Amino acid sequence: MHMINRDVMTNINAENDHIAMHVNEYLKRKGIFTVNVMGAPGAGKTTSLEHLIKLLKAPCYVVEGDIESDIDTERLRAEGILASQINTFGACHLDAPLLHNAVHAMTLEKPGFLFVENVGNLVCPAEFSIGEDIKMLQVSVADGSDKPYKYPLAFEKAGVILLSKIDLTPYLDFDEDFFLKGVRHLNPNVPVFKVCGKTGEGYAEAAKWLAERAGK
Amino acid sequence: MHMINRDVMTNINAENDHIAMHVNEYLKRKGIFTVNVMGAPGAGKTTSLEHLIKLLKAPCYVVEGDIESDIDTERLRAEGILASQINTFGACHLDAPLLHNAVHAMTLEKPGFLFVENVGNLVCPAEFSIGEDIKMLQVSVADGSDKPYKYPLAFEKAGVILLSKIDLTPYLDFDEDFFLKGVRHLNPNVPVFKVCGKTGEGYAEAAKWLAERAGK
Repeated sequence: MHMINRDVMTNINAENDHIAMHVNEYLKRKGIFTVNVMGAPGAGKTTSLEHLIKLLKAPCYVVEGDIESDIDTERLRAEGILASQINTFGACHLDAPLLHNAVHAMTLEKPGFLFVENVGNLVCPAEFSIGEDIKMLQVSVADGSDKPYKYPLAFEKAGVILLSKIDLTPYLDFDEDFFLKGVRHLNPNVPVFKVCGKTGEGYAEAAKWLAERAGK
Repeated sequence: MHMINRDVMTNINAENDHIAMHVNEYLKRKGIFTVNVMGAPGAGKTTSLEHLIKLLKAPCYVVEGDIESDIDTERLRAEGILASQINTFGACHLDAPLLHNAVHAMTLEKPGFLFVENVGNLVCPAEFSIGEDIKMLQVSVADGSDKPYKYPLAFEKAGVILLSKIDLTPYLDFDEDFFLKGVRHLNPNVPVFKVCGKTGEGYAEAAKWLAERAGK
């Protein structure tokens, strides 16, 4: 976004942050703990939500953010999950006004979790708060072990990281030590859970951690 | 980018397109065919460049675009490839002014190919021309077969597509028919080459096509 005047960007961010604060206050009043789910296209974010929602004991709501299509929302609804769609039609990330509108159109009857799956993009979503309590970053082993070095902001801002598709590790040259060294350099204390969407391995630990973090 | 005033965006795009045209004219005068390499993080773009450059008979130059780090540039230089680095420090895509500066700092002595590896991002790079002759989109089977439906612009603008990491297909639920149906809907005639970075499979056909397309 370097071609946009710095003052314009500062104003956009200030306005966004103001609305994000309002969204967060509104959700907190309803007893909702909000998770901003970030990751590159194909990291397996929707699959992780399916696993986590089955494991969490509190009610869960989902907002799906996509440029176009409602493939993931339909997939979640088919499993009985309360899911709502935001289409950005070109925009590369969700922002607080988009979530504000989505949230006010939803019936959030019971306290619980709201998972907001951001647009698949390892860059832009990390720049914008949407009113979340925590950012959950998902990276697949197929994405490669150099990702923290190339996309530092997403790793720096993550409150929890899921390292996914670990069943593919035998067929890849994924260097876990190099990956974790990069993560630790940017974010020394962030928990990293190794998960497998196919078998469900690792999600029980991640769900337990989330429930404790949310106090639910 | 929906929060930015439409007039501001129109001005940014017009200015960018003007510089892109200048960059393209400059490179054409030098006999250079320029390929804008796009794809999600971890699609295997650098690996594809290594294979294609070995196969192409004309001289090849590379510009690596990354938010941070020069991992890929060092990797290419170690193989004797003439590579130059652009770091965007936060920006989610390359634009024409960035390539303009990079190109004018390079010695492009002989006619041939210039590969510009864009920031790993399936969204924003597709919106900006950088002065290329063709956009080459790389998608990995690990990214999932729904990508054309979720990220249509990149597929719509691609002049050629590499479907990579096909050695992982036996371990994934990649639906090639669904993928190709999505591609064809957006871009009926774009060639799609199935490639494997590990074995080099498929790159000979892709390099032959590129050489013919460039007349080199």
